[in-house]
Amino acid sequence: MSLQPVLINGTWRAAQSTGTFKSEDPATGTPLPYDFPISSWADIDAALTAASSAAAALRTVPVTTIGKFLSRYAERMEARAAELSETANKESGLARSPRLADVELPRTTGQLRQAATAAIEGSWSAPTIDTKANIRSHLAACGPVAVFGPNNFPFAFNSAAGGDFAAAIAAGCPVIAKANTSHPRTTQLLAEEAFAASQDTGLPAATVQLLYRTGHDDGAKFVADRRLGASAYTGSRSAGLKLKAAADAAGIPIYLELSSVNPVLMLPGALTERLQKCIDEFVDSSLLGAGQFCTNPSIVFLLASDLTEQFISGVKAKFEARPVAPLLSNNVCKALTSSVQILQKAGAKLITGGTAQGPGYRFAHTLLRVDGDAFVQHAEALQTEAFGNAALVVVCKDAAQLAACINAFEGNLTGCAYSDTNGSDDALYNQVVPLLRPKVGRLLNDKMPTGVAVSPAMNHGGPYPSTGHAGFTAVGIPASMRRFGNLHCFDNVRPHRLPAILQNTNPVNGEKKAWRQVDGSWTQGDIAS
Amino acid sequence: MSLQPVLINGTWRAAQSTGTFKSEDPATGTPLPYDFPISSWADIDAALTAASSAAAALRTVPVTTIGKFLSRYAERMEARAAELSETANKESGLARSPRLADVELPRTTGQLRQAATAAIEGSWSAPTIDTKANIRSHLAACGPVAVFGPNNFPFAFNSAAGGDFAAAIAAGCPVIAKANTSHPRTTQLLAEEAFAASQDTGLPAATVQLLYRTGHDDGAKFVADRRLGASAYTGSRSAGLKLKAAADAAGIPIYLELSSVNPVLMLPGALTERLQKCIDEFVDSSLLGAGQFCTNPSIVFLLASDLTEQFISGVKAKFEARPVAPLLSNNVCKALTSSVQILQKAGAKLITGGTAQGPGYRFAHTLLRVDGDAFVQHAEALQTEAFGNAALVVVCKDAAQLAACINAFEGNLTGCAYSDTNGSDDALYNQVVPLLRPKVGRLLNDKMPTGVAVSPAMNHGGPYPSTGHAGFTAVGIPASMRRFGNLHCFDNVRPHRLPAILQNTNPVNGEKKAWRQVDGSWTQGDIAS
Repeated sequence: MSLQPVLINGTWRAAQSTGTFKSEDPATGTPLPYDFPISSWADIDAALTAASSAAAALRTVPVTTIGKFLSRYAERMEARAAELSETANKESGLARSPRLADVELPRTTGQLRQAATAAIEGSWSAPTIDTKANIRSHLAACGPVAVFGPNNFPFAFNSAAGGDFAAAIAAGCPVIAKANTSHPRTTQLLAEEAFAASQDTGLPAATVQLLYRTGHDDGAKFVADRRLGASAYTGSRSAGLKLKAAADAAGIPIYLELSSVNPVLMLPGALTERLQKCIDEFVDSSLLGAGQFCTNPSIVFLLASDLTEQFISGVKAKFEARPVAPLLSNNVCKALTSSVQILQKAGAKLITGGTAQGPGYRFAHTLLRVDGDAFVQHAEALQTEAFGNAALVVVCKDAAQLAACINAFEGNLTGCAYSDTNGSDDALYNQVVPLLRPKVGRLLNDKMPTGVAVSPAMNHGGPYPSTGHAGFTAVGIPASMRRFGNLHCFDNVRPHRLPAILQNTNPVNGEKKAWRQVDGSWTQGDIAS
Repeated sequence: MSLQPVLINGTWRAAQSTGTFKSEDPATGTPLPYDFPISSWADIDAALTAASSAAAALRTVPVTTIGKFLSRYAERMEARAAELSETANKESGLARSPRLADVELPRTTGQLRQAATAAIEGSWSAPTIDTKANIRSHLAACGPVAVFGPNNFPFAFNSAAGGDFAAAIAAGCPVIAKANTSHPRTTQLLAEEAFAASQDTGLPAATVQLLYRTGHDDGAKFVADRRLGASAYTGSRSAGLKLKAAADAAGIPIYLELSSVNPVLMLPGALTERLQKCIDEFVDSSLLGAGQFCTNPSIVFLLASDLTEQFISGVKAKFEARPVAPLLSNNVCKALTSSVQILQKAGAKLITGGTAQGPGYRFAHTLLRVDGDAFVQHAEALQTEAFGNAALVVVCKDAAQLAACINAFEGNLTGCAYSDTNGSDDALYNQVVPLLRPKVGRLLNDKMPTGVAVSPAMNHGGPYPSTGHAGFTAVGIPASMRRFGNLHCFDNVRPHRLPAILQNTNPVNGEKKAWRQVDGSWTQGDIAS
């Protein structure tokens, strides 16, 4: 057995390991050939020391070089696309097409290129200049960032390639990637290309480092280490909250994306107007990627009616007819089984599905229902995230009960309202959506939440417990970069000692100059000296 | 004994109290006539429920009304300026002039008026529009905010009038003010004017509420309550960290300003060029307000030399000659006594002062010194904040030792570097200031840190443990408002359902329209429909 190497301080070297693990093909349950190390604290410690030096060095690297690295990495990823998609498919069970090769990989390289542009352009850092007081401030790289990627996007949220990685690097922070243990080989290949791109463009050796797995206590010690500027974690709520407790106690910011049931309010007029479309859009979104999206619409609220019964039976029929794809791992399958049991214990009735099935790790498409009274009474249990291809329908007797349900919501990434186009739902919309709005990061109309556009206006975030801080987004350049900036103010600092972006002459780095807030107005111009 | 009333849900009413307390005149140690209640959980609970309703109501109040409230409050404060200054003087020992009446009160009303303008103008909320994807986002009021004000600015950081209050209200959040227990009467008078102004302008009754004091466990429960959007705390590190632990565990953001020693690097050329000016500026800043500023320059680093000895003896002479003003309270005097002892135990030698003295609560101006070796060895103890009129001089043998000292710094609000104007300090500056920069929120050149301008570019913040999050500032409109905004995204939401500031037509509320980021460019214009 030869263990795959970790990447620390520019060297692919043997880990100081406390154990090993393998990934599996979830479509068959077969272990994959590579053995990966579980790193001891010694590996984490070495990575943190190297990252500290890299962070200091990166502060003097021109933003154009950081931009070149991100673009070069995107090119390298594209050159290795076939092997990456093949590997990610084996480790995740997700289809090469339409998904890994033709959707997720282009999204990932597109995100890296957007990050490159934003790093070079500089507006992300909110340069603010008060010329009268001669006080100037901007967001500056916070230091090394530990990224813990999730299982469900082997490329787009990968700890060595995805949104958090791109945002941290673009903000000027070295990344210590902790691979998701369900796709270590995919992460290794990505980190190879990231590291090669960093060498191609002359970045510090420890700009990108990779560990595959750590012990739980070492993970907590990692995010609480004072050499770290911040952490970004996407994954299960229980593991995330342990990291949050450790990081919070040490005062090191941690950005978490934990869990979300993404409620959908299907108002009566929408069903009257377009029942089949409502069914189709819900089913497609609900079963996309076997339901393994952070923004999966897991709970639908409707008012009791014949049309609501038709909606439910329509969804049931489609759930039963649609082929069942493998889940990401045995762990996902076990957690889904357990969550569906929790929902049932809390009063939800099974309409279809509810059991694991082979080959590999699959679960029958599952639909449950419960009434609004029960939801209000057992709101916490009935908001258990059933990560995967399961959904709960809540049938409310009237608008007041729907409002009571919404008032019992926890924080969510998204909330949707479907309504008709002729205004008959407007009164109900105006009654209930103001209750929903503060509970969710992204409010949608007549559209399912699974698509998360990489847009400057996107919010992939929301109130606790969907994330750890409702002021930030994990998707969308440049907004997601702000998580990795510390506010640096310069008071009466001599002109030649200021960062370029705060000097009177607005520097030209890329195609356009940064927008700067100068004396209360936003401008790309220079300041008269 | 008649207890002063609390302000809950628009009524000045008797508290449900678990005890009482009085404030004292620290200049004499005499108790002041009023008795204040320690509120039980019932009061907090009632305030939270009322604030939740007010938060929902405020979401539909025009921003111009919020602006009018803030301006009206400033007018009312000015109309009662004499009584306010008299009361604050009695409770804090701070001079009416030059300080409470002619510096701090105008700063406070100016801050309220800046907040009014910012609330109306709207750019603070970072409106961001992606017209192609039809995704729009902005920062929206996070909900009720609990404000815990410090002892050292009875007006400018008062929980019912200061920077956190102004920022939260301007962001659209109701405030539950928890008075600092050293100036409850001042806070009561301010809350009277705030509440009257809210009635003058038709705001919800619970927009401003006031409690004077709570038990420690109730305070922790308060900041962890899910009805709260966020908390803002300025005060001692130990009390702040208890609140932080409770708020963090509940996932409710808490913004803390805890402690800071504000290191000053006095480079050799500055002494050669302007020794007396360096002494004068340091002493004036060090003893301002009896040293009771968050940004008090508490530690000065110099390289060993004859001029350094002259600096020290010059400061000593001025410390001994300057009259001693009262501290804010007996507690401050006791804490200062204890901190100076900790510094001495860690190896610092007393140059002058070191003891409490009467009348009232005074402490002799205190100067201590230690060498760089000892500082590196006992860095944690020697960074103990001695809040008040005490300062520590650290004499380093060379640049490398100075660098080692800086590497041992905790996070601070500010850091200053004094250097000569002919370039002889530049090499040393370039060696050590890059180490200092990431450890502080605000870097100053040739200027002491006590002045904290209310500027859009100000950062009154810094890395932990000076604050709880290095990405935010507590001073400076509109930046400080961002703490109280949750990111709200609108995806495909129908035009008439969007908040006014995200609609195609940029609304006119005040004198100028908001700056919005539309498709990557900042503009005050409309979007063609």
